[in-house]
Amino acid sequence: MIAPSGFKESLSADQVAAMIARGVRRVVPGAVIDTLPLVDGGEGSAAALARTTGGRIVPRVTTGPMGRPVESHYAVMGGPGPRTAVVEMAATAGLRLVPRDARDPGRTTTAGVGELIAAALDGGARRVLVGCGDSGTSDGGAGALRALGARLLDASGNDLPPGGAALARLARIDASGLDPRLARTELLVACNPWNVLCGEHGVARVYGPQKGATPAQAEALDRALCRWADILERDMDVPAGVDLRTGPGSGASGGLGAGLAAAGARLLPRFEVLLEHVDLDGLLARADLVITAEGAIDRQTSRGKIPAEVARRAKRYGKPVLALAGTIGPDAHLVYGSGIDAFAGILPAPVDLAEALSRGEEFLADGAERALRMVLLGTALNLAAPGRAGAGAGAGAVR
Amino acid sequence: MIAPSGFKESLSADQVAAMIARGVRRVVPGAVIDTLPLVDGGEGSAAALARTTGGRIVPRVTTGPMGRPVESHYAVMGGPGPRTAVVEMAATAGLRLVPRDARDPGRTTTAGVGELIAAALDGGARRVLVGCGDSGTSDGGAGALRALGARLLDASGNDLPPGGAALARLARIDASGLDPRLARTELLVACNPWNVLCGEHGVARVYGPQKGATPAQAEALDRALCRWADILERDMDVPAGVDLRTGPGSGASGGLGAGLAAAGARLLPRFEVLLEHVDLDGLLARADLVITAEGAIDRQTSRGKIPAEVARRAKRYGKPVLALAGTIGPDAHLVYGSGIDAFAGILPAPVDLAEALSRGEEFLADGAERALRMVLLGTALNLAAPGRAGAGAGAGAVR
Repeated sequence: MIAPSGFKESLSADQVAAMIARGVRRVVPGAVIDTLPLVDGGEGSAAALARTTGGRIVPRVTTGPMGRPVESHYAVMGGPGPRTAVVEMAATAGLRLVPRDARDPGRTTTAGVGELIAAALDGGARRVLVGCGDSGTSDGGAGALRALGARLLDASGNDLPPGGAALARLARIDASGLDPRLARTELLVACNPWNVLCGEHGVARVYGPQKGATPAQAEALDRALCRWADILERDMDVPAGVDLRTGPGSGASGGLGAGLAAAGARLLPRFEVLLEHVDLDGLLARADLVITAEGAIDRQTSRGKIPAEVARRAKRYGKPVLALAGTIGPDAHLVYGSGIDAFAGILPAPVDLAEALSRGEEFLADGAERALRMVLLGTALNLAAPGRAGAGAGAGAVR
Repeated sequence: MIAPSGFKESLSADQVAAMIARGVRRVVPGAVIDTLPLVDGGEGSAAALARTTGGRIVPRVTTGPMGRPVESHYAVMGGPGPRTAVVEMAATAGLRLVPRDARDPGRTTTAGVGELIAAALDGGARRVLVGCGDSGTSDGGAGALRALGARLLDASGNDLPPGGAALARLARIDASGLDPRLARTELLVACNPWNVLCGEHGVARVYGPQKGATPAQAEALDRALCRWADILERDMDVPAGVDLRTGPGSGASGGLGAGLAAAGARLLPRFEVLLEHVDLDGLLARADLVITAEGAIDRQTSRGKIPAEVARRAKRYGKPVLALAGTIGPDAHLVYGSGIDAFAGILPAPVDLAEALSRGEEFLADGAERALRMVLLGTALNLAAPGRAGAGAGAGAVR
């Protein structure tokens, strides 16, 4: 079974699954392969859910993360139940839409997310599911709330400029103009529950650097987002029991989770939302080997990323799990704790990031082939007392 | 059993073996590991043979490949038999001694090789074993012959400048001054037999580019080396039956094989020479898994490089072979034909060559750990009809 994530900025989950299957078939031509490309809120989620449910994509031009118009879309899901729209935040505020040389997470905005929610409501949606992931923003959802009618004012009563950094100067939120339809709409946010808004594990510190922040910028952004949480709580009608600072998912997509939660959204674990639409368990149960993949395997992987979630469930069925990664980052070994038995990088030679991204398909098919050959080599190993894969067989397991 | 080559310009074979063992022990702490670091003529050969035989290293300052003095050495082997010196060409004319930004294989010289041979004869050696490999030269051994007393003259009777490119203007060799001791010395050259001097698979075309030649320079160098062979045959007392152009090993170390053969040396397959000094077979016979390694696995690996030679012999004992590589190059899959069941790259992320070389130890230990985990994962695979590792199990092998 091949159940991968997409590779951010390089390959869709569909492409990843296809390339792994290609590599596997080179080694075992007759393999029976189930592929289950997984998108859990990030890039491609709206399209995937439209396809899975027989729904449709609605194109919209929205404000992009840099403040300029971008071609975007939302999805209308098919099937029974209330008319549900899917707003994929990455489709209007994703990292992909921020030029690499202009990355400053203090200035990018989620305005487009608010515009897509409003467009979905204009289109008659009764439920809106917002997918988080692959974001290029860290504005705490401030842009989205403004696009939905809130005003963010400084001490002089002037509107703040866009971006999370400006929230350091936020004095007051005027929520009187907030779109009244929000109050009668079920607003759901599919979040990585491990992402929180503020503090040591806050989103500015954990993700700020990969979105282009210097350490000093990340610290400043963290303080601005904490202030944002304070003032959201004071000036908005935040539902009881919702912790905007360190609650699960409050930091999703640069704090979009917190902003939308303050406007009444429910934050849901994205992998659970995904599992409502795919039969992961059924496929795991009949697999001999589970192969998953992600663009980068690092210390964040075990915190709610697809390979770790797939592996945790695979282990309920006792299935061996192999993970492939475009890049192996710091503390990648932590993933062994989530049920991944082994993982492999796919880069064959010293290459720069641009080449790694552009040759992703070739590298992945070749990497999958090499990894499967190593696994098959293991089937030929004649150990006196074979250890459980990945469990670190003790002394004596090998002569 | 861990039986690797060194990683050119990065790690010695000893270091490679130690790092692989470190990675293996992280996964199987009680593993019984035999390490057999292998050097087959290239960097570290003289030191390894001195150590193995209880001999010693003799330091010498010699002419380096760029014509400037370098600290070099030869070895005197211990043990019975005629007094034998080991001259490692890489110790005086290796690629490592050519600055990366000054690489032009048409200009580098093997003069130091001739100087070391002369020094070994001065020291009383009765046999001289020249180890080829890791060369930074392509002068056909012209520099070595000159250092031993031959003169290379152009049409005006002037001495040629150093380097292989100048051989295009060679008119005549005056061998009258050649060191007379050569005639009564057993001169042996440990060569990769796959390396030939001229033509389509000639050393200028195959190795010129990695030594810094443009395609046009490689073509010109090939023509110059063919001329070199012609004139060696005409003006030197080349033993009958020796094919300087396409005979096995004639192209070893940029054609050093041909030059020394013209002076009466015998060219021997380097891996066979190596096996006289290590008990590879004994260790293979008792191994459960053989791990080998090389800096680059590519289309040249199966042509006499250490991983391929180790794998061929491992297969006589039916042992599974895993190969690790710093870099996976073009047509690497050809190595499956030499008995390598699976191979893995060790690079975790996009890095440039300098970083890949400088972090070689860390990358290799981590890469070995990941590879072994994949192999062990295979031991847990529950296949209906397990295929032979690497053999491409047919339809039905996987459900």
